[in-house]
Amino acid sequence: MKEFDLIDRFFKHGGHQRKDVLVGIGDDAALTKVASNQCLATTTDTLVSGVHFLPDTPPRAVAYKAVAANLSDLAAMGAEPAWISLSLSLPDTDESWLAEFTKGLYDLSQYFSVQLIGGDTVAGPLALTITAQGFVPEQSALTRSGAKPGDWIYVTGTVGDAGAGLDILKGDLAAAGESADYLIKRHQFPSPRVVAGTMLRRAASACIDISDGLLADLHHILEASECGAMLHVDRLPISEALTELVEEQQCFQYGLTAGDDYELLFTIGEEYKSQVETAFSSFNIRATCIGQVTGVAGKTDLRLNDKPFKHSGKQGFEHFNAS
Amino acid sequence: MKEFDLIDRFFKHGGHQRKDVLVGIGDDAALTKVASNQCLATTTDTLVSGVHFLPDTPPRAVAYKAVAANLSDLAAMGAEPAWISLSLSLPDTDESWLAEFTKGLYDLSQYFSVQLIGGDTVAGPLALTITAQGFVPEQSALTRSGAKPGDWIYVTGTVGDAGAGLDILKGDLAAAGESADYLIKRHQFPSPRVVAGTMLRRAASACIDISDGLLADLHHILEASECGAMLHVDRLPISEALTELVEEQQCFQYGLTAGDDYELLFTIGEEYKSQVETAFSSFNIRATCIGQVTGVAGKTDLRLNDKPFKHSGKQGFEHFNAS
Repeated sequence: MKEFDLIDRFFKHGGHQRKDVLVGIGDDAALTKVASNQCLATTTDTLVSGVHFLPDTPPRAVAYKAVAANLSDLAAMGAEPAWISLSLSLPDTDESWLAEFTKGLYDLSQYFSVQLIGGDTVAGPLALTITAQGFVPEQSALTRSGAKPGDWIYVTGTVGDAGAGLDILKGDLAAAGESADYLIKRHQFPSPRVVAGTMLRRAASACIDISDGLLADLHHILEASECGAMLHVDRLPISEALTELVEEQQCFQYGLTAGDDYELLFTIGEEYKSQVETAFSSFNIRATCIGQVTGVAGKTDLRLNDKPFKHSGKQGFEHFNAS
Repeated sequence: MKEFDLIDRFFKHGGHQRKDVLVGIGDDAALTKVASNQCLATTTDTLVSGVHFLPDTPPRAVAYKAVAANLSDLAAMGAEPAWISLSLSLPDTDESWLAEFTKGLYDLSQYFSVQLIGGDTVAGPLALTITAQGFVPEQSALTRSGAKPGDWIYVTGTVGDAGAGLDILKGDLAAAGESADYLIKRHQFPSPRVVAGTMLRRAASACIDISDGLLADLHHILEASECGAMLHVDRLPISEALTELVEEQQCFQYGLTAGDDYELLFTIGEEYKSQVETAFSSFNIRATCIGQVTGVAGKTDLRLNDKPFKHSGKQGFEHFNAS
């Protein structure tokens, strides 16, 4: 199948259609409109087979996760997603693979009214790059750099699930049954926290999504904000599934260092604490206070039952370990 | 070197800084502003080593060409480029390679005042995806679908050079000296027709950039516009370098089918013909009338000295030839 046939068949006619897309797939570039009171948020994420997902990952999960990772980055800025572009590198044109892949692409994009506006398909090793664009009202965006000593540190959902799911798939964690399935699903079909992100506009002092691991991503906030943190490991939100399958210490380890949870980690000043908690509660979104920002720049002080806690192992996902 | 060090060292601080970028590299997403009277144009192109460029291509040329291909797509819409995002997949972190690559990335982006606003670096086979964003005033964009019977067909610059340059590099065309160097340079460092694109706003009835080959790209216009074309092969603008190195028939072949020239192919109604020719002439941009749009949908009628001409060989670059 030729590239143009492939684009036509799988990508051109599917998916959500938005009114702010003047020209979509099929010209040299897409043409879209951004409302005048909105900023444009743009993010790009690449997933490579064998690096970011196991080579035997179902194609639907590959596409789903790529969209989720990008929408999660937008959510961490408080942005509402609007359009995605897809670059897909494929060793061959396996039509049944593509049909499943397309389903995964549209699962989340339909749900969030996001339109696929363009992209590229090339022959090459299996990899995909998605660029997502969205809007955030002026002066409402969440960045990494506004945390201040005294701010409370929160995280949405539960942490460590995706890492444990990956270990089960790799055979590094022996588990089966419902809990195992749940963790694998959390790894393969993560939920970007789009609604939570928009609710945090103007309220959160800093925000990031957990892609590299909680400690590593917290470190990005602390570095950008020139602060430190006190983190209560015993307050980490751990899912029932993870609690059921591994010991407490191992739960902490997954929760602190495993990546790909795509939960939001954010800081809030005391003055917004009850407002945010009420809003999250009314939308039934779990958000847990796990610590507080300190003035000791760059230092993360871990506590377990208020006593110093030392975690072992790596801090988070690193793409290059050479040299 | 870790990903974050790599981004910091090579990408974070270099390049042009624009006032419409509120948050650049280093957060979850970039934040930018689009003026209220402008549309946003977005395009994505992926280049894979061994597919789109020879594995021994100098890194500066790899980056340069990736930027050029994307800016060329924006130019074909009449858009002015503003921001690019880069996703770079690298087998390892070779610092001297990256330093040269960065130069190529900034060569064109500095020239056109384009800012690198984000991206991703991953471990994987050598490949890069660039997403470029730019602006075009409302109702001024050039698309592929507006050509009408009677419109004149033009092409900027000269055609076939990049294809011949590639054949020289591959050893398929024996040549050396200044002309060979010129053709190789046209292949490795193509010039996106940004100024020409903005000059064609509202004047051209259809426009595309030549990436797949003149005939293949003309076919995209004809298909979108439901027209045909009469093309005078003897009027194709062929460079002195190409004329010097190959026979006339071979020049036609390169000119008709070789891709990667990144010239603009456009159609103009009779009423804009002299206006566009005067404008191009005053900016010293070569544009040649090579034929006319006809009403015979889907048919391209080739002529040589007003007699029917049949070209041999493939029509243009196809990414997938399997099945």
